[in-house]
Amino acid sequence: MALEIFPLSPQNIQELPPLSGVRIAIAEAGIKYKDRTDLLFIIFDEPASVAGVFTRSKCPSSPVEHCRVSLPHGVARGVVVNSGNANAFTGRKGKQTVDTIICAAANALKVKENEIFIASTGVIGEPMEASGIVNLLPSMAKTAREENWLEAAKAIMTTDTFPKLATRRFDCGGEIITINGIAKGAGMIAPDMATMLSFVVSDASISSQILQSMLSKAVQESFNSITVDSDTSTSDTLMMFATGKAKGNFPSLTSKTDPRYEVFSKQLCALLHELALQVVCDGEGARHLIEVRVIGATTDNAAKTIALSIANSPLVKTSIAGEDANWGRVVMAVGKAGVEVDRDLLTIWFGEHRLAINGERDPEYCEEKIGAYMQGKHITIRVDIGLGNGKATVWSCDLTTEYVMINGDYRS
Amino acid sequence: MALEIFPLSPQNIQELPPLSGVRIAIAEAGIKYKDRTDLLFIIFDEPASVAGVFTRSKCPSSPVEHCRVSLPHGVARGVVVNSGNANAFTGRKGKQTVDTIICAAANALKVKENEIFIASTGVIGEPMEASGIVNLLPSMAKTAREENWLEAAKAIMTTDTFPKLATRRFDCGGEIITINGIAKGAGMIAPDMATMLSFVVSDASISSQILQSMLSKAVQESFNSITVDSDTSTSDTLMMFATGKAKGNFPSLTSKTDPRYEVFSKQLCALLHELALQVVCDGEGARHLIEVRVIGATTDNAAKTIALSIANSPLVKTSIAGEDANWGRVVMAVGKAGVEVDRDLLTIWFGEHRLAINGERDPEYCEEKIGAYMQGKHITIRVDIGLGNGKATVWSCDLTTEYVMINGDYRS
Repeated sequence: MALEIFPLSPQNIQELPPLSGVRIAIAEAGIKYKDRTDLLFIIFDEPASVAGVFTRSKCPSSPVEHCRVSLPHGVARGVVVNSGNANAFTGRKGKQTVDTIICAAANALKVKENEIFIASTGVIGEPMEASGIVNLLPSMAKTAREENWLEAAKAIMTTDTFPKLATRRFDCGGEIITINGIAKGAGMIAPDMATMLSFVVSDASISSQILQSMLSKAVQESFNSITVDSDTSTSDTLMMFATGKAKGNFPSLTSKTDPRYEVFSKQLCALLHELALQVVCDGEGARHLIEVRVIGATTDNAAKTIALSIANSPLVKTSIAGEDANWGRVVMAVGKAGVEVDRDLLTIWFGEHRLAINGERDPEYCEEKIGAYMQGKHITIRVDIGLGNGKATVWSCDLTTEYVMINGDYRS
Repeated sequence: MALEIFPLSPQNIQELPPLSGVRIAIAEAGIKYKDRTDLLFIIFDEPASVAGVFTRSKCPSSPVEHCRVSLPHGVARGVVVNSGNANAFTGRKGKQTVDTIICAAANALKVKENEIFIASTGVIGEPMEASGIVNLLPSMAKTAREENWLEAAKAIMTTDTFPKLATRRFDCGGEIITINGIAKGAGMIAPDMATMLSFVVSDASISSQILQSMLSKAVQESFNSITVDSDTSTSDTLMMFATGKAKGNFPSLTSKTDPRYEVFSKQLCALLHELALQVVCDGEGARHLIEVRVIGATTDNAAKTIALSIANSPLVKTSIAGEDANWGRVVMAVGKAGVEVDRDLLTIWFGEHRLAINGERDPEYCEEKIGAYMQGKHITIRVDIGLGNGKATVWSCDLTTEYVMINGDYRS
């Protein structure tokens, strides 16, 4: 099916600066797609610190299992990523494929096998051959270049309609630090966690332990606060690497009490948030970005439960697709969330338009004004529960006929 | 939007036999719809026993609140039901509307107000006027007839494409008993509970307490085991009445140890199950009925959680719409359910076709055979978790472009 350019596509694709000692190669392995790249090899010329957050699925893919085992070693020299096949639910063969690729990548770089990480995205349950990938890795190791970030983001796309990239450059305790990130998303996007694949690299010098602490925290308000369709992938992988190659030669960040911890964390949060929103904007068939802000819940957790109930409701999502400010369905979604609410204390806004107050329609409700608002691309639904101080914000997209067509059509 | 006849519509609409002393009137109140009935008045000429199961939404409608309060009185003389407006999230005005209608119905029948029950279905959050309904009730009380069951089922439809009726006639301890039931569903259908409205009447003589016990049990494997879109309505109402007018003049059923308890319960379960399946078959935009059977889970509850995770997954539902046996998405839905599973023990069948075993694709998998099966209207997904004896079956329907169109279009 030919995909049109969806309305939430960015106007410009960002360019990421090269990072010293981080070389990137891409190739056409022909795993599923024809005439496009589907294989990415990220190479760290010297050992990098590493952290990762993975799917909570009870049926994780073989690549996810491999990364979980290698992560405690705390050193990364390379990452192999393919699109077109998730190598998930592929049994012993799936593990053999992973082992074969890891072995070939380690040989190509002359490093240890537990310093190679791997991720696969695409169809689930189809056996995946290692040979097409393995044969390409040695030449990729030679031709990899520091400038290839945009090509990297393109190679990991599946049903994505645009590559997802973000970068930050900032002063971190006197040293100028860069963080580059790429992601791919599209479908099967839900907490926890909420991207299929994302890779983030910084030239800061940070221990793996501290890197993991910052990543685990930053993911909560970014990738774990977005949802496209409430479906959690078997393969969700967010990995972060730190090379220590920034030019300042500052001492390594190894403690949470180091003032640079907060500086770096803040920038990392912003970068992950930017990538996560790109994933939602490219939700399959998405025509509207939906921001759901819940305040006044009994706790932050209750607020997030309510916000996700709204953001995942097919009836709310289809009404946004129809540009209909159907706040009655928001009430329904609040009611089904299962946490403490009082119907007669609810206040609901769409954008700046208050539609409901004290458990009924706002007396000043104006259909025309709200109709104009609903034609925008970015819809904010705000709900005040009126009970406490708990708050949460999540992002989602609308449910369109295109979502159904894409997903009724994907495998075949 | 003009709705075509959907493929899961029944070939024939059932005719229900009249029940002595149960008179039914319908009328056009013009609440929202034009040129169709939207008001139903069920009248019990003598006091009937009553039981009810209602939405678990934390934001229930005013009619649901009224029924909950009146139910302990244990006597029913009338039920007023309207379609077109749910009178939900309508604040004090909503309660006033309910009170006004209840008062008028009680006056028309010369009975007590807590012997009148009420239900409303339709749009949420729009104020509903009582006057159009109230003016019609006195004449309806006079013209009501025992033969109007089909008309009753039609009057409570909203986006339903066919009226839903079921009946049972059976020997219950020597007495011939009849149970008639009607329901309406369409969207916002999910446990718990899983119909918007259903009314069931029997001529058996059963105490309200025993009636409630049987109804609460029977709902678990019928209306609480279906899901169209995982959205729980603010208005879900299932009510049951028993008139004691069967001709045998047998003693009333007032104890669970009475052998008739099991006989009646079994018939009630079957009738509710039949109605519940009609609701799923008329799920908005439904083109395939999906039966999800999970066995081998650690507990029955775990099995139901997994079954609902599969039945509610947008990606599973869209793949069925596309007639694609995408069992990889079934694995995904099993994995995200959050209960104990072992990926490498899973076995998955679509119909009689085993697609996956021991955590990978079945070696005898045949794309053509399964392709033919997927073109049927009734798709059974069977999953053996391989861990224990827990089992559950739920029913759902596919997610089609028509669902999105209906729900992007409904309010406006």
